[in-house]
Amino acid sequence: MAAEGALEVPRFFLVLAAILVVAKLLGELAERIGQPAVLGELVAGVLLGGSVLGIVPTAGPAGEVLHVLAELGVLLLLFEIGLETDLREMFRVGTASAAVAAVGVTLPFALGYLFWAHAPHGVQAGSTGLTTTAIFVGATLTATSVGITARVLSDLGRMNTQEARIIIGAAVIDDVLGLVILSVVSGVAAGAAVSGFGILRTLAVAVAFLVVAVLVGRYTAPRLFDIVVRMRVRYVLLVFSIAFALGLAALAAAAGSALIIGAFAAGLILSGTNQFDTIEKEVRPVASIFAPIFFVSVGASVDLGLLNPFDPAARGVLGVAAALTLLAVVGKVAAGWAAPWVPFRRLVVGVGMIPRGEVGLIFADIGRRAGVLGEDVFGAVLVMVMATTFIAPPGLKALFGGAPPPGR
Amino acid sequence: MAAEGALEVPRFFLVLAAILVVAKLLGELAERIGQPAVLGELVAGVLLGGSVLGIVPTAGPAGEVLHVLAELGVLLLLFEIGLETDLREMFRVGTASAAVAAVGVTLPFALGYLFWAHAPHGVQAGSTGLTTTAIFVGATLTATSVGITARVLSDLGRMNTQEARIIIGAAVIDDVLGLVILSVVSGVAAGAAVSGFGILRTLAVAVAFLVVAVLVGRYTAPRLFDIVVRMRVRYVLLVFSIAFALGLAALAAAAGSALIIGAFAAGLILSGTNQFDTIEKEVRPVASIFAPIFFVSVGASVDLGLLNPFDPAARGVLGVAAALTLLAVVGKVAAGWAAPWVPFRRLVVGVGMIPRGEVGLIFADIGRRAGVLGEDVFGAVLVMVMATTFIAPPGLKALFGGAPPPGR
Repeated sequence: MAAEGALEVPRFFLVLAAILVVAKLLGELAERIGQPAVLGELVAGVLLGGSVLGIVPTAGPAGEVLHVLAELGVLLLLFEIGLETDLREMFRVGTASAAVAAVGVTLPFALGYLFWAHAPHGVQAGSTGLTTTAIFVGATLTATSVGITARVLSDLGRMNTQEARIIIGAAVIDDVLGLVILSVVSGVAAGAAVSGFGILRTLAVAVAFLVVAVLVGRYTAPRLFDIVVRMRVRYVLLVFSIAFALGLAALAAAAGSALIIGAFAAGLILSGTNQFDTIEKEVRPVASIFAPIFFVSVGASVDLGLLNPFDPAARGVLGVAAALTLLAVVGKVAAGWAAPWVPFRRLVVGVGMIPRGEVGLIFADIGRRAGVLGEDVFGAVLVMVMATTFIAPPGLKALFGGAPPPGR
Repeated sequence: MAAEGALEVPRFFLVLAAILVVAKLLGELAERIGQPAVLGELVAGVLLGGSVLGIVPTAGPAGEVLHVLAELGVLLLLFEIGLETDLREMFRVGTASAAVAAVGVTLPFALGYLFWAHAPHGVQAGSTGLTTTAIFVGATLTATSVGITARVLSDLGRMNTQEARIIIGAAVIDDVLGLVILSVVSGVAAGAAVSGFGILRTLAVAVAFLVVAVLVGRYTAPRLFDIVVRMRVRYVLLVFSIAFALGLAALAAAAGSALIIGAFAAGLILSGTNQFDTIEKEVRPVASIFAPIFFVSVGASVDLGLLNPFDPAARGVLGVAAALTLLAVVGKVAAGWAAPWVPFRRLVVGVGMIPRGEVGLIFADIGRRAGVLGEDVFGAVLVMVMATTFIAPPGLKALFGGAPPPGR
C-alpha cells in the first residue's frame, strides 16, 4: 500500500529486476566463453539501452533514480576495491604507478592533439577554433575508467598481484589528473583563460584530500570502529562502513575530487581496522547487487547507430574513430614501459589502462554541450570510448587469465 | 569523475550517510533502554525530518530518489519476513488470522464512523458532507502497518511464535482489505457511486494474485533456482532472488495489489527452494541497509507542531486525536479476541495490530487532497497514526519481550 503516491515505482522496480537478471545472465555467458563477467554486463547494457530495447530509463525521475543507483554501484565497487588493497604494497609500487599514470595521460593527450591539429581527417569540427577542438580531443583520450579495470582484475582473481596494484594506483592517479584536465578543459570550453596557478590549485586540492583523508582516517577509523563493533543492533558494522564510504565520497566531491576517489580512500582506510574481514565479507554482496547497475548504465549509453558501416555518414566517423582508438590504445599501452626501475609485466599494465568507460563519456559530453566537439567528432570520440572499454576485458583476460604463474 | 553531470549526488549521499548513522545510533539507544530498535529509527526520522533538522528531503529529485530507496527498504523487509515465514504454519493459523483481520478492520471503521457522525467534536470537517468525512475517518483507522509490527517481532526474536504468525497473516490480509477500502474511499472522495460489484472485484483480484502467485511460485521457483545455483557469477543467487522480489512486487501492483504484498509472496515462495538458507543469509544484510531508510522516512513525515499543547489551535486537534487514538487502539486490541477457537495470547496479537504507520498516512493524504478531510481533521488523523505507530513497539516489547516462555 505504500506506493500509491508515486505511480512509477512498480514500473521502475520491474526495470531494475530486468537489469539485474539480464546483467547476470550475460555475465554468466561471458564467463562461460572465457571472458570477464563485466563484459557481459556491458553488453547487457547495450541490449537494454536505447540502441536496441530502450528499457533502461535515461531521463525523467526514473532516469535520475537509476543514475543514483548506478553511482552507488561504482562507489560500492571502489569501496570494495579499496578494502581489498594493501596500502603498504600500494606505496611500494607508488613510483611505478605515478610514472605509468603520467605517461598514460601525457602521451594520449599529445597524440590526440597532434592528430586533430595536423592530420587530414575531413570531419567537421565544433563551432570553436581548431586548437580548442584539438585540446578537447586530446583530453578525451587521457582518462582511465578505474571501475572497468578493477572489476576485470577482480573477476580474474588477480587483485593481489603487483600488476594489479600498479594499475589501480595509476588509474586512481589518472582520475585525479583527469579532474585537473577536466577543470582546464571546461575553462577552455567556456572560452576562459586558464592559469597555471588554477591548474596547480586543483591538483593540490585533489591530492591533499586523498593524503589527508587516508592519514587521518588510518589513525582514527580503527578507534571509531572498535567502538562501533560493540554496538548490538544488527549489521551495525556494515551500515556504518557504507555510511563512512558515502560520507567520504561526498567529502571528496566537495573538496573538488571525485566521489569514487573518496569511496576508494574509505576502503583503504577501513582496511586498517580490526573489523576489516567482517566489513569486506558483508560489503561484497551489497556491492555485487549495485555494481551491475553501473555497468549496464555504461553499456546503455552506447549508440549502435554510430557503428553502421552501410551508412555513408557513419563511415567517415568510423574512420576517425578507428584512428582515435588506435592512438588511445598505443598511448596507454606504451605507458606500461614508463617505470623501468620496477619489474612487472609491462603489457598487462598497459592493457589494464586502456578502458575509458564512463570517464571518457563525461569529457565528450562536456565538449559536445559546449559546442567544442561537433556531432561527428563527438560520435568518433564515443566510438573510441566504447571500443577501448570493450577491448580491455578480453585483452586482460588473454594476457592475465588462466592459472597464476608459479611463485606468485 | 562519474558525478559531474548531476550536481546533487554528493549531497544526497551525505544525507543518506546521515540517515543511516543516526538511525543505527538511535536504534542502539532504543535497544539499550529495552525498546525495539525500530522505535529508535522512527525517532531518528522525527529528528532528521522537517519538524526538527529538516535534513530528510521530501520533494524534488532527492525526495524522489529517497522515496524509491525507502520503498526498496520496506520491500526487502517484507521479502525477508516472507522468507522467514513457514507457509504451512501460516495456513494452520489462517482462520485465526482472517478473523483477527476482519474484526480489526470492521470494528475500528465502525467506531471511527460513529464517533465522527454522532459525537460532538467541534473540529471543522472537510468541504464535503458529514457522512463522507465520517467514512474517511473510519477508513483511516482500518489499516495495519505490517512493516512496523514485523520489524518489532523480528527485533524481539519472536518471528517463530504462534502469535507472530497470526499477526503477520492478519496484517497481510489487512493490507489486502486496505486496498479494497482505498478504492472505495477514493471513489467516495471523487464523488462517484461505489458499486458492490466493484468492491468485490478489487478484493477478488488482490486475493487471487496472492493465491495464484504462491501456488505457481512454490511449484516453479525450486526448479528455477536449482538452475540458477549452478551459475558461476558471484552472488547470482542473491541477485536473482532480489530481482524475483522486485518483479513479483511490480506484478502485484499491476494486479491491483500492493508492492509489499508481492515482496512478501516472493519470500513465501522462495522459502520453498533448496537454496532458501543461502538466500536468507545474503538478503538480510541488504535488507538491513535499506529498511532503516524506510523507517526514517516514516518518522520524518511526523509533524511535531501538531503536538504543541500551548498552541490553542493544536489543543482542539489534540483532543480529537486522543479520541481517535483510543478508538484505534480499542478496535485493534479487541480483534485479538476474534478467534476463540485457536489458543494464543490475545493481547499480544491485539497490540501487534495497532500500528497504522505509512498506510494510515496514505489514507489521510488522499482524504486531504480530495478536500474530504479538512486541515484540522487531517492533523488529528496524523497524530493518531503517529501515536499508534509509537505505542506498538514498546507495548509489544512489554508483553512479548524477555525470555520466551518454557515449552516454546
